Amino acid sequence: MKKIISGIQPSGILHIGNYFGAIQQFIKFQEENDCLFFVADYHALTSSTDADALRKNTRDVVLDYLALGVDPAKASIFIQSHVPEHTELMWILSNLTPMALLERGHSFKDKSARGISSNTGLFTYPVLMAADILMYDVDMVPVGKDQKQHLEMTRDIATKFNEKYTEIFKLPEPMIVESTAVVPGVDGAKMSKSYGNTIDMFASKKILKKQVMSIVTDSTPLEDPKDPDNNVTTLYKLFATPEKLEEMKEKFRAGNYGYGHAKKELLEAVLEHFAEARTRREELVANPEYVDKILAEGAKKAQAIAKAKMVEVKKAVGLI
Amino acid sequence: MKKIISGIQPSGILHIGNYFGAIQQFIKFQEENDCLFFVADYHALTSSTDADALRKNTRDVVLDYLALGVDPAKASIFIQSHVPEHTELMWILSNLTPMALLERGHSFKDKSARGISSNTGLFTYPVLMAADILMYDVDMVPVGKDQKQHLEMTRDIATKFNEKYTEIFKLPEPMIVESTAVVPGVDGAKMSKSYGNTIDMFASKKILKKQVMSIVTDSTPLEDPKDPDNNVTTLYKLFATPEKLEEMKEKFRAGNYGYGHAKKELLEAVLEHFAEARTRREELVANPEYVDKILAEGAKKAQAIAKAKMVEVKKAVGLI
Repeated sequence: MKKIISGIQPSGILHIGNYFGAIQQFIKFQEENDCLFFVADYHALTSSTDADALRKNTRDVVLDYLALGVDPAKASIFIQSHVPEHTELMWILSNLTPMALLERGHSFKDKSARGISSNTGLFTYPVLMAADILMYDVDMVPVGKDQKQHLEMTRDIATKFNEKYTEIFKLPEPMIVESTAVVPGVDGAKMSKSYGNTIDMFASKKILKKQVMSIVTDSTPLEDPKDPDNNVTTLYKLFATPEKLEEMKEKFRAGNYGYGHAKKELLEAVLEHFAEARTRREELVANPEYVDKILAEGAKKAQAIAKAKMVEVKKAVGLI
Repeated sequence: MKKIISGIQPSGILHIGNYFGAIQQFIKFQEENDCLFFVADYHALTSSTDADALRKNTRDVVLDYLALGVDPAKASIFIQSHVPEHTELMWILSNLTPMALLERGHSFKDKSARGISSNTGLFTYPVLMAADILMYDVDMVPVGKDQKQHLEMTRDIATKFNEKYTEIFKLPEPMIVESTAVVPGVDGAKMSKSYGNTIDMFASKKILKKQVMSIVTDSTPLEDPKDPDNNVTTLYKLFATPEKLEEMKEKFRAGNYGYGHAKKELLEAVLEHFAEARTRREELVANPEYVDKILAEGAKKAQAIAKAKMVEVKKAVGLI
């Protein structure tokens, strides 16, 4: 049993690319580990000043995760800003973080290069991330390959603290999360909210249908045989058994089977796959007090750990 | 009646340069204003990792201020880190602070130029300073001329927040504190801890005597007349009435009056001036519970304001 923490960006409605790329695995972690999932609302401030959107996205992502299977009996789920100790630890760690370390950050360099005006939060957020992680003495942090650098920064900062003061921070190991499947968007490119090519499992049936129907296909006539490896089957593969997938591919090869037919089957498969999650989400929306209670309990658990850790930290640096 | 806040650096034992340069005036403010004085222990982390020194210096500066006349019945005195909301507000404000603003900071540029390795805290501390000030809706902040830039940064950041979100921050005005007197050190250069030329009003009599006796003078023989404007009279001026000062100058002009005699008179004047403060400080040292109580009350007042303000801020940015 390992202690694992993972931050969830409240960046709007989730799509099946998020689900198959990461969430599915995160939800498996809770079965055999001590998991903390937090919604990184402080982090969201680095990129947007839309207060209403932040409030909505934060709530939505909680509902999405709970609907998809985060089980409050097995994992703690909390909102980052319910544990303001994260920012206090960030400040303390800032003083042990060479600016050069942050200047090497991919994310900062990328955004600067793309001309996104550099606010200080965008520059310093890896220190907040270090605080998020080090606060809880975790063993592992699931990260995509592109975020591995941030975890290395966290380890660097922790090492510096442990050397300068007292050894109180555990060095977390990265747990590289490989996407289990390549999830293409409706246009065949990588599914991404910013490309507008997503299939959103919690959208209304009407919107979901529209998204699935917009999958880009070629204009082979209905009666002709078709390439069985197309944008529809690639997505269908995520939902269907190997037998079902082979059945669909066979129909494409045989001809007299249109993309429209396949899309209909895909839509049904999507709805079936997420049927339970969609129902659960509706129930959660209808029971805000229940969700509040889960978040309050998650915050309470996290706060208890954070408060105890901050006593250690403050003693070590001389604030108490 | 204005609301005023001032941060006190816990940088070790105070000297008469601090006293005549600033503290004397700060203590006057409490008579006609609503004053908040805080010991900036979070800030001290930017320049030192000596935990024991920080603990000692934080306590010492509280004792010094109380001994010198900060009256808890008139002003609130608290330790910055007892109000961790300062760091939370700092994070939020970071996201509205262009890096370019901080890069222009005198203090950062100076330290970088002097080859002091740039930690992130040293770079971002003007944002913490902005949080310290904006949290309390103050009217005025007493600043030396050299710190005026930091207050301008605070106003810039507040303006940005008020424009992007809701108008909730008051723009504080600088209250330029001119040194009432030039206070030279025992070597004639500006009195400064880093030059090792201080006279420390709370040092033991033995050390105080040693410091006064080490005032640099010339080697004119005892019997000869001497320049009445020397390092001893410049310091004596701070303590003596104009008549007393004139008397000493007259003796220098007349001859048969040595620097040693003058130093003895100066030492007596210093001890007399600070007699009450020295006694009060000893009493405070003997009554740690009383000091703790003052700090707890100060923190309670500050926390109440900070907590209410953070609710406003969090609502405005969408964290609640």
